[in-house]
Parts: sequence; structure tokens; C-alpha cells
Amino acid sequence: MKVYSNISQLLTLSGAHAKDGRKLVDSDLSLIENASIVVDDELIHWVGKTEDLPEDYKKIPTTNLSGHIVTPEIVDSHTHLVFGGNRSFEYGLRLKGATYEEIATAGGGILHTADKTAHLSEEELFKTACARIERINSYGVGTIEIKSGYGLNFEAEYKISKAINKLKEHFQPRIKIVRTYMAAHAVPKSFLSSQQFIDELVIPLMEKLQSEDLIDIVDIFHEKNYFTDEDTRKLFTKAQGLGLKVKMHADEMNDNNGAAIAAEFSALSADHLLQVSDAGIRALAASPTVATILPGTALFLGKPLAPARNMIDAGVKLAIASDYNPGSCHCDNLILLTSISAKNLGLTPVEIWAGITLNAAHALGLYEQGAIIAGHRPRLSVFKASTHEEIFYSWGRNLSVKI
Amino acid sequence: MKVYSNISQLLTLSGAHAKDGRKLVDSDLSLIENASIVVDDELIHWVGKTEDLPEDYKKIPTTNLSGHIVTPEIVDSHTHLVFGGNRSFEYGLRLKGATYEEIATAGGGILHTADKTAHLSEEELFKTACARIERINSYGVGTIEIKSGYGLNFEAEYKISKAINKLKEHFQPRIKIVRTYMAAHAVPKSFLSSQQFIDELVIPLMEKLQSEDLIDIVDIFHEKNYFTDEDTRKLFTKAQGLGLKVKMHADEMNDNNGAAIAAEFSALSADHLLQVSDAGIRALAASPTVATILPGTALFLGKPLAPARNMIDAGVKLAIASDYNPGSCHCDNLILLTSISAKNLGLTPVEIWAGITLNAAHALGLYEQGAIIAGHRPRLSVFKASTHEEIFYSWGRNLSVKI
Repeated sequence: MKVYSNISQLLTLSGAHAKDGRKLVDSDLSLIENASIVVDDELIHWVGKTEDLPEDYKKIPTTNLSGHIVTPEIVDSHTHLVFGGNRSFEYGLRLKGATYEEIATAGGGILHTADKTAHLSEEELFKTACARIERINSYGVGTIEIKSGYGLNFEAEYKISKAINKLKEHFQPRIKIVRTYMAAHAVPKSFLSSQQFIDELVIPLMEKLQSEDLIDIVDIFHEKNYFTDEDTRKLFTKAQGLGLKVKMHADEMNDNNGAAIAAEFSALSADHLLQVSDAGIRALAASPTVATILPGTALFLGKPLAPARNMIDAGVKLAIASDYNPGSCHCDNLILLTSISAKNLGLTPVEIWAGITLNAAHALGLYEQGAIIAGHRPRLSVFKASTHEEIFYSWGRNLSVKI
Repeated sequence: MKVYSNISQLLTLSGAHAKDGRKLVDSDLSLIENASIVVDDELIHWVGKTEDLPEDYKKIPTTNLSGHIVTPEIVDSHTHLVFGGNRSFEYGLRLKGATYEEIATAGGGILHTADKTAHLSEEELFKTACARIERINSYGVGTIEIKSGYGLNFEAEYKISKAINKLKEHFQPRIKIVRTYMAAHAVPKSFLSSQQFIDELVIPLMEKLQSEDLIDIVDIFHEKNYFTDEDTRKLFTKAQGLGLKVKMHADEMNDNNGAAIAAEFSALSADHLLQVSDAGIRALAASPTVATILPGTALFLGKPLAPARNMIDAGVKLAIASDYNPGSCHCDNLILLTSISAKNLGLTPVEIWAGITLNAAHALGLYEQGAIIAGHRPRLSVFKASTHEEIFYSWGRNLSVKI
């Protein structure tokens, strides 16, 4: 048992938790000044003002967190961080206005990453990813989702999923890794159709990985010229039949009715949503599905940001994630990406905090973290700062500390 | 004399230099692979491919910079980094949609910073600024402009200018500080008009500071409800009469014909330019005045970015700076701000590099740096990276190294 006391500001988000992360107001931060918290390895036991700490807990050695802010643990619920290679040359082309096709012709795009990833062993993938995860954790992010998807063939996808599982085992419990299977990332040229790829590779490999307990969630790139409504419904039906959770890349390049399909399956999340329609927003609002926006990707590609304000106002539960990947968002710092986009997204502080803690945890199916409440998991982030606003005010400054 | 050799990529920008930083194409990066450079403390002596290094220089001990990129030194040509206090509370209000007036009523705005700055001694201002400068330098920025302007009265402005001068002396030659006098930042309530403030405080103090060799450049916040055309012309005429250079905050909130006034005085730069008119752009193109854009401020305030592409295409010399300050852009990292805005600004790699090196140096009247050419000052930045594109591709990652 440990006691942390004199915390300058503790954001419990208990108000946000009670509202399931929707339509939040300032008071839903449930901020306690000069707070204490009592935890063991498994549970939060007590939360309140330091002056109200029960007698029994006063005997336990205390860590003084005066001058610090404690929040629910920051969760990055969308990354593609297991990859080989470096696509900085492609970024240069992009800045010069190259189209997707021109980049592909110059040897860029997902096939570049797939090729470089194919040349790394499971151990090499594991090691490069370890360094990336440690850096992400240094920003105060403690739960990280990782998608497979740069394999594009059975063996490579299997290797990547095993590497992700090894990362999960290696880092737990300090860093929680959530394993997402996303073989349905793009259709390799060796398949005639997305349908054939889903039938002959994506589903059989999913079944194998599920039987070996190597994956938690199944994702798909639902988009024109990638995977269809039918592919998505078939994959999700199979996945849910196996007891796996589902989420999807939805309405990024076009409005494809992706949000509504995610809602239809009560997917954990629909991600991207740059082009989501009003009907899609209404479907999300009526579902448990979290809308996960990835503002870094929009900025990296020079696109308008997702309609975050409209979604929140409609009653959608909104999360923010990094989309850290080598092609469309080479930024691993969720707090930075949130800071630089918050004002243009029209997000308030409580919406930001819920978006990277509570709602991001829900986007991964983690309902016992994301709020600092007795009985929940003691997954916390700690910052050296005088106010919680300072964490977003100081762009590019890492205020995270380890306790 | 020192020799740096095997530099993976040396961006000399000699092509950009030959074009005075205007209408650049890729080849104006004047990139040399596997390059060497010979320098002493004062001058660049030789630049070229390592294999072409003249015999005489081969006897000199060499530093191997394989795996590194060398560029002209990064210059942050617009900061307000001498200040007291912290306005994170105000940033929280801003995210909640508070207006300028509401922020002022809540105790925010420039008067908050002026009050906190007034309570610090010259030594305290110096010390807090030292820490900020070291951090900025850690990103690879080696020349930094600093404006006064949070004094709002004679004594406080004098104190700030002395602190800035002390910073210059303290850091030279490792870090070059350029001292800008900007008492004309806002009109204090104790003055009846901007005209009275210019006549009774700004000009007399400028004369005193110039006589004591404490300032290099004079700046003014030319804007509706701040300082008028007449104020600006009077101040600039006086300043130039004293041999001081001038620059101005122009066309940020409204199109006030600021760019044209800057051009009329051949000001070193016109800064902000969010609302610059086509006529203003034409005036800049026909003048030596650099257009300095501050994309961090636009993002921080949730405004559209400056029309960088239009200006460059019209033949304007464009620089990029941070505007690091406690109110409207609390970000001190110019490379980060450039990275996150480049794609939406429509800037190519050569335009980015010229914008933070050559053209930024010109925005401070420094014509002997900004390109790596024999006879120029040996002011360089060095990054651990395999390509120069990687420096902007890796958002939020500090790749700068000291040699």
C-alpha cells in the first residue's frame, strides 16, 4: 500500500466517468486540490483531500506530491509502432506536393514499410519497438495500443503479432500494451480482391492468433479501394464470434458510412472520421462506440481536422490518439499532438483530459481505468506542474515524471 | 582551425544565398553529400566534398560527422522570452472560448505579464531567461532575437533592456543574442494616447538605450487600438536617425497596411501578416523586408495560418519564427512549430530551411551567416539524422547535437 499526498491538483474525472465520457462540463474534471490517494498494486483504495485522509492510512509511508498534478493514466489508443524503415524521404516529397501515386512510384507508401518490416526478425521488431515504447512512456503515456498490419502476408503478419505479444509480456504491468490485429490494412497485389484476401488470409490468421491468445482487438481499414462494407461485416462477425473486440478505420478519406457500421457492431471505436457525415455522428451518439480522432495525421497530411466539436455536441464519446506510424503521422507524442490541435478542434480542458484518459481507455475496452475512483485500477500519470492547464500550455515540453 | 568531415548531408544554401532567399527551388539547398568543412572561430575557410579536401587541411585534426546533417545555424528571429509569470490559467480560459476581454477581466493578458515582470529584478529576469535560452539552444537554435516590451513604464523597460544586453554578453559567442527594443507593445492606461506614449516614453527611452549601446533593433505593435501609422513612422524615423534598424508587428489581427509601411522603411522584417493584403504582399516583394510568419501563434490562438505560399510565389523573402511568449504562443521550439505547420503552409523543404536559417538571419540584419560559404561566419547547426527531411519528419523529436 502506498499513499501519495499533498498533490497540487488531482483530476479524478469521476464526474466524466458518471457521464460515460459524454457532454462534459468543467466540473466533470472532478478536480481535488491538495489531494491524497491510497493505492496498492491492484486497486485504488481511497481518494480525497489530504486533510481528510483516514487515520489508518496515516501510518503508511507517504510520498509528498506537492507541486505535482496527478491524472488518470494517459492512454494512446491508436498506434502502428511496430515497423521497419524510415519514410522521411517520402515526407520531403509530400511537402513538395507529391500525390499518393507519385509517392508510391518513388518507392514510398505502405509497401515501403512492409518491405522494410519483412526484413526484420521478430526479435529486431521487438527491440526497435521497445525503444519507441519507452520514449512514449517518458511523456506520461502508460497504456498503448499497437496494431499489426505491415506484414501483408501470413508469415509476416504472424511475426508482427508475436512481436506485439512479446512487447505486452515484457512491459506489463508498468506499461499496458493492447494488441490489435490489423492484417486488413491494405490488399496485397498477390490477391485478386479484398474479399479473397479477407477469406484466405485475414480470417484464417485471425483464428490462429486468437487460438494462441496473441490478440485482443481486430481492426480494418474500411475505405474506398481498400476494404468494403461486406469485408468489414464478415470480419467483424467472425471476430465477435471468437470473443474478440472490434474497431475500425472509418471515414478518413471519404464518407463511406463507416461510423454507422462501427456503431452497428458496437465497435470499441471508429477512428479518423475526417469525413464523417451527420448520419454517422448520430449513429455514434446512439452507440457505445468511441469516436477516436487523430489530429496529428490531419496536420501531417495537411488536411482539415475532424469535426470534434460537432461530435461531442451530438453526444458522441470522443477520444484522441496519436496514430504514430512511419507514413502519415511520424509523431509519437500524444500530449504534444493534443496541445497543438486543441484550440482548432474547439476542445475544452475537460474534453481534452477525458479524450486522452477515460474515453481512450474505453476505446480499448478498458473500463477499470481512466478515472481515479476507489476500486479502479491504479493507472495514473504524474506531471511536475502547478496547474493541469500548464500541461497543454507548454507545447513540446515534457512535464511527465515517474513516481 | 577545425575540420569536420564525412558529413552525411551538408546544406550550404549557397544557391538560396545567391537568390537572396527568394523563389527557391530544390537545388538551392546546395546539398553536398559526404562533405567537409574547414572553420576557425571567425570564418568558414573551405566547404566541399570530403574527397576534394585540399592537402593543407588534411594535417588538421578532424571530427568525423558521418551520420550527421550540418546546416546553417537555426535562427529564431522573433521571441519575447524575458518575462515573469505563467499564463496557463489563461490558456485554459481560451480553450473554453473566452474572449480577449473576458481574459483581461479574469486578470490575464499582457497586463498580467507586465505585473509579474515588474516584480522580478534584473538579475531574476536574467536567470529565468538563461534557462529558457539554454533550452532553445538545445534544439539547435544558435541565434535568438529577444524583444523587450513587458515593462510598460520607463524603469521596467530599462530594466528589461539591460537584462537582454546582459544575456547577449553572457552567451556570446556560443549563442548570439539580438536585442530588440519594443516598448511600443501596448499603451499603458496611464497615458492618454499612443501618441503621448510614443513621445514621452518610447522615444526618450530609445535614445537613452541607444546612447548606452543596449539595443540593436526597434519594433512596434502596429495594430488597430495599439499603435498608428503616424506613431510607427515617427518612431522609425527617429530610430533610423540614430542608426538603429527597425522591424514591426504587422497585419496580425487586421489588414492595417502594415506590410507596406514596413516596406516603405526597408524594415528588416514585417512579422505575423495573418491578414496581409495583396497590396501588402506586393510591397514586401519589391522591398528588402523579410516576411516573418509565426505559425505557432496562429495555431495557439486557433486562427488560420499566414498566406505563406502566396507571399513566396510573389517573390517575398519568407522567414519562420517562434514568437515564444507567455500569452499567445507558449512554445519555444522553432523546429517543432515549423514541422507541424509546414504542410498546411504549403512550404517545400528548401523554403523551410531558408526560412529558419538564411532568411531568418536577414530578418535580423545578419548577412554573414545563414549560408555555409567560405568567408561567412561559422554559425552552424548539427543534427544526428540520415537525411535533412528527417529533422521535420520526426515531430517533437530533438535530433540536435553539439559538436
